[in-house]
Amino acid sequence: MRTVSKDNITQAFLNYCSQDTDPRLKFVLEKLVHHLHDFVRETDLTHDEWRKGLELLYAAGEISTPERNEFVLFSDVLGLSSLVDMVNSPEDGTPSSVLGPFHVLGAPEAAVGADLKGDNEGKTVVVGGRVLTPDGQPVVGAELEIWQTADNGLYSNQDAAQPEYNLRSHMNADDDGRYLFSTVRPAPYTVPDDGPVGELLRATGRHPWRPSHLHFIVTAPGFRSLVTEVFPSDDPYLDEDAVFGVREKLVMEYQERTSLDGLPDDLEIRDRLTLPYYVVDFDFVLARAET
Amino acid sequence: MRTVSKDNITQAFLNYCSQDTDPRLKFVLEKLVHHLHDFVRETDLTHDEWRKGLELLYAAGEISTPERNEFVLFSDVLGLSSLVDMVNSPEDGTPSSVLGPFHVLGAPEAAVGADLKGDNEGKTVVVGGRVLTPDGQPVVGAELEIWQTADNGLYSNQDAAQPEYNLRSHMNADDDGRYLFSTVRPAPYTVPDDGPVGELLRATGRHPWRPSHLHFIVTAPGFRSLVTEVFPSDDPYLDEDAVFGVREKLVMEYQERTSLDGLPDDLEIRDRLTLPYYVVDFDFVLARAET
Repeated sequence: MRTVSKDNITQAFLNYCSQDTDPRLKFVLEKLVHHLHDFVRETDLTHDEWRKGLELLYAAGEISTPERNEFVLFSDVLGLSSLVDMVNSPEDGTPSSVLGPFHVLGAPEAAVGADLKGDNEGKTVVVGGRVLTPDGQPVVGAELEIWQTADNGLYSNQDAAQPEYNLRSHMNADDDGRYLFSTVRPAPYTVPDDGPVGELLRATGRHPWRPSHLHFIVTAPGFRSLVTEVFPSDDPYLDEDAVFGVREKLVMEYQERTSLDGLPDDLEIRDRLTLPYYVVDFDFVLARAET
Repeated sequence: MRTVSKDNITQAFLNYCSQDTDPRLKFVLEKLVHHLHDFVRETDLTHDEWRKGLELLYAAGEISTPERNEFVLFSDVLGLSSLVDMVNSPEDGTPSSVLGPFHVLGAPEAAVGADLKGDNEGKTVVVGGRVLTPDGQPVVGAELEIWQTADNGLYSNQDAAQPEYNLRSHMNADDDGRYLFSTVRPAPYTVPDDGPVGELLRATGRHPWRPSHLHFIVTAPGFRSLVTEVFPSDDPYLDEDAVFGVREKLVMEYQERTSLDGLPDDLEIRDRLTLPYYVVDFDFVLARAET
């Protein structure tokens, strides 16, 4: 409209949307444009700053590939990805956390008690616990997908020296909801910082490190799927994850053990364990699916 | 931090910025993240919606080239580009409007009164006026850069059938601040809608049309540079410009003339004019540069 002004342009945008626009789309766009317009008005954004923002987006497009998506990375380091996780996390289940770009399909099946460590260097850790309903009952038929870095901070699909599917597994919890495996401690690593996201991090004095973590996807019929990560309490980056993935309820403890006492019989690595090793006990709680 | 939540993640982002971050950068980022986070919180944005947004950005990266920047186009159709223009427009000068992607450097010089129409088809229009200070005095040494579409809605750099620099010119206003040229009426055209911006327009029932316009850049020593567009009052898209570029003060009138009476002596096309033709009278007011 010819009388458009900085005070009515947000409404002008809405007036352009046709009556039969999908109501949810219209609501989301209304909120998006409202906030972007307020951002420009409240900052009196200059043309140079506007151009700089557009240059960062253009550079993100240039560096992005299906394997390295700089737009997702911008969303991650601005806290948007984690915020979307948080607004969609059920109150009565284990919190979700970022999926990240290193998940791959087709990891091998393993039985409860399996060893994922194999020939990997690093400290041995025995990870186990139960998959539970919000009222503490075992979730029958729960499936867990597990992936993590090796001791060098790289995932198998980043590191030609690792076997395919190294430190990746699918596992079906037993009738008691129990899961168990042995592995190595994962290591902290940096998000890619050779593109525009790295430029933003450096301009704000931020580092690109993520604390070490184990990734899990936990699913079961009748329950909401859980995509999450679990972080050791002693990681130096626990309180400064570059992508805001840590939640208090996702922190696990490495318990040092100097004997084999109390280890379950079905732990495959049991007879090969060298002392000391570490034990992690972590339960997942799945919220019921909305019906 | 491990206690990050949907209520404190915005502050967590700010805490990550180092003390010696440039204060303006920190302020702009604070406002940007504050509004993006509020957007997610107020919409309870779903993972599917978040992925769709990221897909649109990725697709924008894929279709963008130095000549066709889809991120600028997103900014345009969301009203952001025009809002940046508006918050930076001085109160006491002619409003600015979008530069657009069709400006090229190196257009030829032309004297006051020059003809740009040449062999172009279309209705002849004589455009003239003055470049003035906010208190109505002529701006000595004012330079004008002019570009527009041909009658087919295409700029010379979009249309191999047009000569290089067709309907493009530089002109120095005379000592009275006066400029004058003859040309053809520009035509409405569509912004590119074969990419993700087109997808957004269709999903919201919007058309991609811009009203016809003349582009101007007006500069003079001691004054703020003016990048603007001037729109005819009878254009069918005047109240629904896809990129929100129209301002009430940028609307011009095509006055139909059926005689040569009153035409200035220095109008080059004067003796070749066929009746009827059209006259536009439009003055530019330049705000003084901040010192």
